[in-house]
Amino acid sequence: MKFTLAQVADLLGGVVEGDDQAIVTKIEKIEVAQEGAISFLSNPKYEQFLYETNASAVLIDKDFELKEDVKTNLIRLENAYNGFTALLEEYERLLGLSKQGVEQPNFTSVSATIGSSPYVGAFAYIGQNVKIGNNVKIYPHVYIDDNVEIGDNTILYSGARIYQGCKIGSFCTVHANAVIGSDGFGFAPQDDGTFQRIPQVGNTVLEDHVSVGANTVVDCATMGSTTIGKGVKIDNLVQIAHNVEVGDNSVIVSQAGIAGSSKLGKNCIIAGQVGIVGHLSIEDNTTIGAQSGVTKNVTEPGQTLLGSPAVEKSIHVRQLTMARSLPKMLARIEKLEKTLLETSSN
Amino acid sequence: MKFTLAQVADLLGGVVEGDDQAIVTKIEKIEVAQEGAISFLSNPKYEQFLYETNASAVLIDKDFELKEDVKTNLIRLENAYNGFTALLEEYERLLGLSKQGVEQPNFTSVSATIGSSPYVGAFAYIGQNVKIGNNVKIYPHVYIDDNVEIGDNTILYSGARIYQGCKIGSFCTVHANAVIGSDGFGFAPQDDGTFQRIPQVGNTVLEDHVSVGANTVVDCATMGSTTIGKGVKIDNLVQIAHNVEVGDNSVIVSQAGIAGSSKLGKNCIIAGQVGIVGHLSIEDNTTIGAQSGVTKNVTEPGQTLLGSPAVEKSIHVRQLTMARSLPKMLARIEKLEKTLLETSSN
Amino acid sequence: MKFTLAQVADLLGGVVEGDDQAIVTKIEKIEVAQEGAISFLSNPKYEQFLYETNASAVLIDKDFELKEDVKTNLIRLENAYNGFTALLEEYERLLGLSKQGVEQPNFTSVSATIGSSPYVGAFAYIGQNVKIGNNVKIYPHVYIDDNVEIGDNTILYSGARIYQGCKIGSFCTVHANAVIGSDGFGFAPQDDGTFQRIPQVGNTVLEDHVSVGANTVVDCATMGSTTIGKGVKIDNLVQIAHNVEVGDNSVIVSQAGIAGSSKLGKNCIIAGQVGIVGHLSIEDNTTIGAQSGVTKNVTEPGQTLLGSPAVEKSIHVRQLTMARSLPKMLARIEKLEKTLLETSSN
Repeated sequence: MKFTLAQVADLLGGVVEGDDQAIVTKIEKIEVAQEGAISFLSNPKYEQFLYETNASAVLIDKDFELKEDVKTNLIRLENAYNGFTALLEEYERLLGLSKQGVEQPNFTSVSATIGSSPYVGAFAYIGQNVKIGNNVKIYPHVYIDDNVEIGDNTILYSGARIYQGCKIGSFCTVHANAVIGSDGFGFAPQDDGTFQRIPQVGNTVLEDHVSVGANTVVDCATMGSTTIGKGVKIDNLVQIAHNVEVGDNSVIVSQAGIAGSSKLGKNCIIAGQVGIVGHLSIEDNTTIGAQSGVTKNVTEPGQTLLGSPAVEKSIHVRQLTMARSLPKMLARIEKLEKTLLETSSN
Repeated sequence: MKFTLAQVADLLGGVVEGDDQAIVTKIEKIEVAQEGAISFLSNPKYEQFLYETNASAVLIDKDFELKEDVKTNLIRLENAYNGFTALLEEYERLLGLSKQGVEQPNFTSVSATIGSSPYVGAFAYIGQNVKIGNNVKIYPHVYIDDNVEIGDNTILYSGARIYQGCKIGSFCTVHANAVIGSDGFGFAPQDDGTFQRIPQVGNTVLEDHVSVGANTVVDCATMGSTTIGKGVKIDNLVQIAHNVEVGDNSVIVSQAGIAGSSKLGKNCIIAGQVGIVGHLSIEDNTTIGAQSGVTKNVTEPGQTLLGSPAVEKSIHVRQLTMARSLPKMLARIEKLEKTLLETSSN
Repeated sequence: MKFTLAQVADLLGGVVEGDDQAIVTKIEKIEVAQEGAISFLSNPKYEQFLYETNASAVLIDKDFELKEDVKTNLIRLENAYNGFTALLEEYERLLGLSKQGVEQPNFTSVSATIGSSPYVGAFAYIGQNVKIGNNVKIYPHVYIDDNVEIGDNTILYSGARIYQGCKIGSFCTVHANAVIGSDGFGFAPQDDGTFQRIPQVGNTVLEDHVSVGANTVVDCATMGSTTIGKGVKIDNLVQIAHNVEVGDNSVIVSQAGIAGSSKLGKNCIIAGQVGIVGHLSIEDNTTIGAQSGVTKNVTEPGQTLLGSPAVEKSIHVRQLTMARSLPKMLARIEKLEKTLLETSSN
């Protein structure tokens, strides 16, 4: 990127104080920003950096009162934080502008339909009867198997794999090497110790505005659908097993795993490396702390659970406190024994 | 799929009660089945759904006695559950029928040999001296490096990566983006704090009937082979390190990890997110509970271990019970102190 | 491989005792080596195998004194272990010799530059303005997005994904299906319960001699760079979140995860399945035991931490010991109660 401050002010609806022809070429945090960078000040804790920064420009709130002289240029805005986010979005939009059109070679079945303004990268594979909406970006090496449907404005990054019959909504993002709709892990034990595979003929449904991280796996259902609700955000390397249902706007952090047929409510937060066993039901607004292991239904909404096995937060804290007080308890027992011995011998 | 009930009965060796020209187009669970669906009843707990279902047909056991009128059509079979599994398999077979022949472009070395009736997807890569059996399906974007051998009836899904010299048996399945035979994590610490890579020149061997989940990694051996025994089922996102040996018919659930050179017996069950440290030996028929961390050899077969560090199940349960009883223990100590004080002062 | 012992001795600077025209075709450990194999003896614990082995040759130290007759041929070297590593490297070099030149089809933007002696596999994708050094190996199905820079002698294995603007140093290795520079997991909660994505416009920097395992993910920074220091070795299925910094020569074992903005010092060892929460600072030479969960800054260098939440090793060991002694503590309380009752009633 390369903007004059006048252009940035124009874009964000702000006013320049200083040299409006100064050039900015990058976006950096105020505590590390160097010449040529544009930054922002929103949190008052960082105010001192405003007077020291080498940034070429800083976005600040319209009514912010300077306590010292500044050497950087300023752009005053209604809300510096929102302006900064808008600037990031504009920058990202510029970065992505080159991703348009259809690169060769790609493999697109004659029965597939693709909406307007697509990006189809080289070596992308689009199977039979696939239906793709408008403004969809399919990066190189994406695999879309037969009968998949993909809504408008969705992005599939390089190496994403979408198995047969899955449905992906609009405004979704699937990051590199994520796998959607692979076989659920279903095997019936036989008398001779071997396992007979149970065919997994369902699919996976991602509703609108779902984000799936890199190398994450969401298995298909045995029958029916594994369902990821509207607005759900899933981080990298997460495992979602067959027939799981995740409620709208829940967040699942990296390396967490949800076993088969469990149902997660809306607005839940599942922290990193959490495990949830199968066939559970977890109420709305539940928060599960990192590395916890959930082994029972969570029937009351809005709780925070911690530990493995996971318990309500206050219970977990008490358990930890107790565990730490064990040396003192032992000392008290020893003292009692000694006292009692003395008492007895008196 | 689209079948008349007469066709289904024919396929499964059953008898229709009701309209044998009714059409079924999908397979659903009895508790949610809608018109056009075929379902089954096996578990008596679900009997009530038989009388209420909107399914167009339900498979039931030959000698099942109806207690109420049904509105759905029935197909009576020797064993409804087995019939249902057979129907799932038939459905899946139909879904997979389109995967045949050789798509272009693909990259196949002239020195590679491929058996009869293959599927080779577009953008598949088959290296030098690769030997592939009959009826093998190689999905798009699969990478098979030089000198790999693959047995009959094996399926490699999109993005599977098979490194140099690995051997994959017959009737194996490797799911999307799984990696077989990547470098073991071997580095020798040097005096200056850096690490010298130890070349990993072994391979990975998957025996027959092995299933490997999406995004799972099975590293090659430093020398010799990392070996996955016959019939082993591995879920998604699992890590199997170099020189590990997994015994026949063991099951390894999602996100578990087995460190270098450990040997797992036959018929073991390793639950989700388990960690097993390196150079251990674990006896046959061992079950390790979810999130457990195994740090010692398991020398007696048939045990169940839980916790981190993992201990035998009954010990783990006692430890948990004890931990939960700490507040009561503390209260008893306080009472003792008080009583003793009173006793002393009397 | 196929060598006479004379050739091996020549390569390693050793002297043959026995038949210098004997042929070796594989490298195996002394305890399992068969005819045609070359092995080595370094650890005196394994000396007995020297007299029993079926290997066609064994490397031993120059001044090693035989206590019995051997049937195998010997090659005497200054240091048998170093010689063996050199032999492994030579073997690996031979295996990799076939990877040269440019396979078709690949997709290389006209604005990309590639140094001398490259390997570019079929179906590799090289975006706009990409700069690639000399002797770089880009395996089939690798994706390199626009503006990426890659140093000399680096290897990217099949299915590695490098997002826009990332920088990869010299002598780096990125294993199959690893993802470098995918979006950081940044979402701002909105009043209606939905999440607004925060654009992630930074990049990921791998300094020289970094190794990244299969299916590992290193996210890009929100702004600036996620930085992996020189000589860092990362195993498979590891998660490194946005804005993390990892110091030189640290080691991160499989399935560990480091949350956003945490800073890891130099020469640290992070064992398997460890979790480190966000915004922490961890001093140099810290070791974190397997499955531990780090929730606080580690301000003193050189410590070993264990447990979840992680504490200094000696504290963790005491906690475990205490927990195991609970049944005895309970028994002592019961005895005290009994004794006190008797004392009182006397």
